[in-house]
Amino acid sequence: MVENARDPLVIFMPSGRRGRIPRGQTVLAAARELGVAIESVCGGRLTCNKCRVRVEQGQFAKHGITSRDDHLSPASVEEIALLEALGSPEMRLSCVAQVQGDLLLFVPPESRGQQQVIRKAAGDQTIALDPAVRRVTALVDRAELGEHRGDWGRLRDALAEQWQLDARRIDLHALRQLQPALREGNWRVTATLWHDEVIDVSPGYERASYGLAVDVGSTTVAAYLCDLYTGELLATEAAMNPQVSYGEDLMSRISYAMTERSGLDKMHRAIIDTLNRLAAAAARKAGIPPRQIHEVVFAGNTTMIHILLGLSPVELGAAPFALASRDPLDVKARDLGLHLHPAANAHVLPSQAGHVGADNVGVLLAVEPYRGDEVTLTVDVGTNAEILLGCRDWHFSASSPTGPALEGAQITFGMRAAPGAIERVRINPETLEARFRVIGEPRWSDEWQIGPEVPAEEQPSYLAAGICGSGIVEVVAEMFLAGVISADGRFDTSRQHRRLRRVGGRPAYILATAEQTAMGKPIVITQDDVRNVQLAKAALYAGARLLMNRSGAERIDHVVLAGAFGSYIDPHYALVLGLIPDVAPEQISAVGNAAGDGARIALLNRQKRAEAAEVARWVRYVETAVDPDFQEEFVAALHLPHARDPFPHLEGVLPESAAIGPPRARRRRHPRQKGG
Amino acid sequence: MVENARDPLVIFMPSGRRGRIPRGQTVLAAARELGVAIESVCGGRLTCNKCRVRVEQGQFAKHGITSRDDHLSPASVEEIALLEALGSPEMRLSCVAQVQGDLLLFVPPESRGQQQVIRKAAGDQTIALDPAVRRVTALVDRAELGEHRGDWGRLRDALAEQWQLDARRIDLHALRQLQPALREGNWRVTATLWHDEVIDVSPGYERASYGLAVDVGSTTVAAYLCDLYTGELLATEAAMNPQVSYGEDLMSRISYAMTERSGLDKMHRAIIDTLNRLAAAAARKAGIPPRQIHEVVFAGNTTMIHILLGLSPVELGAAPFALASRDPLDVKARDLGLHLHPAANAHVLPSQAGHVGADNVGVLLAVEPYRGDEVTLTVDVGTNAEILLGCRDWHFSASSPTGPALEGAQITFGMRAAPGAIERVRINPETLEARFRVIGEPRWSDEWQIGPEVPAEEQPSYLAAGICGSGIVEVVAEMFLAGVISADGRFDTSRQHRRLRRVGGRPAYILATAEQTAMGKPIVITQDDVRNVQLAKAALYAGARLLMNRSGAERIDHVVLAGAFGSYIDPHYALVLGLIPDVAPEQISAVGNAAGDGARIALLNRQKRAEAAEVARWVRYVETAVDPDFQEEFVAALHLPHARDPFPHLEGVLPESAAIGPPRARRRRHPRQKGG
Repeated sequence: MVENARDPLVIFMPSGRRGRIPRGQTVLAAARELGVAIESVCGGRLTCNKCRVRVEQGQFAKHGITSRDDHLSPASVEEIALLEALGSPEMRLSCVAQVQGDLLLFVPPESRGQQQVIRKAAGDQTIALDPAVRRVTALVDRAELGEHRGDWGRLRDALAEQWQLDARRIDLHALRQLQPALREGNWRVTATLWHDEVIDVSPGYERASYGLAVDVGSTTVAAYLCDLYTGELLATEAAMNPQVSYGEDLMSRISYAMTERSGLDKMHRAIIDTLNRLAAAAARKAGIPPRQIHEVVFAGNTTMIHILLGLSPVELGAAPFALASRDPLDVKARDLGLHLHPAANAHVLPSQAGHVGADNVGVLLAVEPYRGDEVTLTVDVGTNAEILLGCRDWHFSASSPTGPALEGAQITFGMRAAPGAIERVRINPETLEARFRVIGEPRWSDEWQIGPEVPAEEQPSYLAAGICGSGIVEVVAEMFLAGVISADGRFDTSRQHRRLRRVGGRPAYILATAEQTAMGKPIVITQDDVRNVQLAKAALYAGARLLMNRSGAERIDHVVLAGAFGSYIDPHYALVLGLIPDVAPEQISAVGNAAGDGARIALLNRQKRAEAAEVARWVRYVETAVDPDFQEEFVAALHLPHARDPFPHLEGVLPESAAIGPPRARRRRHPRQKGG
Repeated sequence: MVENARDPLVIFMPSGRRGRIPRGQTVLAAARELGVAIESVCGGRLTCNKCRVRVEQGQFAKHGITSRDDHLSPASVEEIALLEALGSPEMRLSCVAQVQGDLLLFVPPESRGQQQVIRKAAGDQTIALDPAVRRVTALVDRAELGEHRGDWGRLRDALAEQWQLDARRIDLHALRQLQPALREGNWRVTATLWHDEVIDVSPGYERASYGLAVDVGSTTVAAYLCDLYTGELLATEAAMNPQVSYGEDLMSRISYAMTERSGLDKMHRAIIDTLNRLAAAAARKAGIPPRQIHEVVFAGNTTMIHILLGLSPVELGAAPFALASRDPLDVKARDLGLHLHPAANAHVLPSQAGHVGADNVGVLLAVEPYRGDEVTLTVDVGTNAEILLGCRDWHFSASSPTGPALEGAQITFGMRAAPGAIERVRINPETLEARFRVIGEPRWSDEWQIGPEVPAEEQPSYLAAGICGSGIVEVVAEMFLAGVISADGRFDTSRQHRRLRRVGGRPAYILATAEQTAMGKPIVITQDDVRNVQLAKAALYAGARLLMNRSGAERIDHVVLAGAFGSYIDPHYALVLGLIPDVAPEQISAVGNAAGDGARIALLNRQKRAEAAEVARWVRYVETAVDPDFQEEFVAALHLPHARDPFPHLEGVLPESAAIGPPRARRRRHPRQKGG
């Protein structure tokens, strides 16, 4: 399909899949075109109601009163009645609603063909339980004539005597509960303390107390609901960061805050709304009221934290990238508009510098690379990559502008890690034929049985819909190893083969054929895609090199890959591509969403908050943006490493299919060898 | 005029004047009937618009669509247009609106014949300036690449280095100001600190900072706007406590909170609204924005403070009269719904016991009876009287249920201290004729020239409209001294005279004749009026006696009368009536609204807050409500003291007119003589 720039742009959330769709096409057809799975059983007969989508942007009319500004065909009386009966009047049925203009659509979980795989799952780390929130039951002296301490004074005395707690303050909310609770509980009450402040008083004995740890990512917001009494993780919820509609990356959100009059306010409210929804959803899943969430701990990059707090992020957009606060902050959740316990605290983890934020401090807390003697390289790949290098004696950090390519964005057929996303790729260096595996289907594509004659149960569960981060790393590495591209990233067009085609006059590699995809059109890797991966990997590698240079470290003992990306890439290919400096594959480990884990650790253990603040000040931050060394390392690292001698680091690390190597790969010295 | 119980009840605020008015009478006529001064120039031609009143309770229709439930005649199109043009569509013109049902009307200041005299004026006490709020200007290190303290960290360092201030916290509001203020001020900013919390940051140099001290009385709310940099009192504003419409006294408000579902909430919102209006009015008067008020300090009785904080006052309604908090409290003003500076603090003075609240602690701070060696009796008369007795070594306190009679309430013709209120009374013991003086007119009534033949400028500025607290004390004392009533308070009906009449079959004394009053009907003192004054004075006296008994004090060196009442009564008459134990008149002093002064002291000096908390715990509270001694003292004190031997305490203290004394006063031993 050739896209027409004058066709409306349709974006589906949360997958982020987008494309131009001719006017008049149904939303359901558009979804299929773009590889977005939406349930639909009745095929437009308005009986199954499974294909509901929420219109986030793009107006439409009801009852046929149309306007030139409508972006969707009007809803019929039947459709409106159906949606209202289902309690979702703001939705549309994608099988009948037709595209008439630009649209941002949200596919709710119940309408998705299969739940999106949220890879920011919480780890299983054991955390010593010592939360900032404590609930204790105390027997308070009765009020008596002639005794004038007041109920608050008597509660304070009881807490001191029975629990050795020095309660110095009481929140207005708790003070309002105090008198009825004491009498209802016959002078036995449960006091909820946040540090030395009483934030709740309830009659009798109660232990249940909950906390929320949140990693506010630029793209994904992940929330972990924890039981503060047992430490148990009760529910994990994730959602798109709604600010995506104001700007895909950090810089465009900063510029939105600068240029739009109420830009900051809009983005602030959007994330608060999302957090409230996430908290409510997690609470629902755990079967508790959101009002019992007594604290929330936030990790996130500096821009996200600024916007979350209603602070303008403009200073982060230009040197010297000044933070409003490097230190941890505690504010009442209510002052942010969060609907948790009325006196709940919001703790924001500290940052290190303008570009290394609370998310990286979360990673530090979760990985603890500052405890051992080994030199550890900790890498968290997001739209920016945060890089840590060090051991117990010293630690450096940097932020590298990788861009979103390694997350599957800015790639022609890039998509998030959702069913149908290509995640593994092998290219035969002789035939240059590709085979791949998609999320949700265990068989490699060369084992697929496709076609009308194949029984449904033998067909793959998912056809290819796009390519996700780990797939992108593998396909570019494999293209290099097979000689499809050379060390400088250019397509080798001297060798003609079936998989080579031209897109807009430039060469591209056909990864999946039309019959292998959900859209019925091939998935290709273009020259621009390869360039974007080169830029990303060079930024990452150059950042790590810069820290090695600064620290004088000559070896790395351990590489820790944090984040969704780190969890799913094959370390071998990371080495082939030159994402990270030389280590043996067994020295590489993935830790999942360590930022979220760090927030969870700080939620469950208040000593860790002090540790976080201390570590955040201790780590020495190196500014990549203005460092000439970095620029040099970056330019040198744009090239892909050779797979043969004199590059012994790759010996034995290549997977079987890659071992053969490209016959014509250029013998160019990789920059990483410069110092060694 | 004889009132008909089926006529609508009309109440005018803030004077509190009330009465039953026949249906169809205009509001203006009703006001005149009840002695409420409302401006009216055009006489109902809808041209002067001076007679606007706000309808607080009582619905009415617009445009002639009437209903059986209307309490006022409908507003005509002309009236509506006029009021809307004046920006007050919620008002009515009293010259045309007719009474049709019960009404609570508020006469706004601009409609009043003359401003109500608010006698809770702030004293001129000198207070050492050391407010909790400080503004300091600091030069902050510029943000630079490679320096990662963050703007907040740099500000903190600057405050520590340049001002030796340890700023530990920053309010979210201030954090949001921080970055733009630093850059706009070219790194010179003024930080506003409340204790160790930064609550505001503004560019450049700024000193102006304001605070509000408020005495929340059951009837009157008085607010004092102070400059926190100079200590100067900039504006004083007072208003009716709007909770009056939910209950005249404390018990009826407590019971309203108990019995009405949202009773507490209504009363809480009403006082918050009033406080916001007072703050805005005071700020307007001083020419500052209310947002520059950085702190508010509250004094008030325990019930008022509970309701102010949104705490149910029900526990204060019955033994053991438990306070939610005896200790001082600090809450964000915004959490109370106050529209001051967005991060302003609200400090609530401590209380002593269930019936001795922050207002009495304010009195303590202002009078400081705990500093000297002299035994001081400090009395603050409100609806309850708070009584303190002691010196630097010991102090006792008690609360006595005087009722509102001494404030002019529960007295047939009682009114507040406003123009036209009778405040001085003399009765000739021979003729039993009375003469009096009203507020706003310097001449005694026997010098008045009244009548159509007298030129306007020679007529009194005000005719009598009612009788205020000091007038009530004097008239009852004079009636006793002249023999109109005997020592047990009963009218002596054996002696017929012009001033004696019967009201509802019972004797009454004509204090002002019909031609001397604004209403054109006589002002009388009934047997019930005398009884109410007896009850009040007995409660007050018995409370003081109780503390003397408890403390073993045999003498009182000094009597301090606090509050409006204390300021305006003649000490001689207080002694004649037996309000207070024996002292020489020169040992009695009045200190005005000491509770408000105490709040102002705490506002301007934070050391005084600690002192207040300490003193509040130190004073020993004696519960009158359940004390058998008190009951006995109370019953004994109901009698009026004799004005002759063997009561040497009155020698030389009686004013001229009283010196002659009643020929037939009974020689009954006054209870105060019991112990002596």
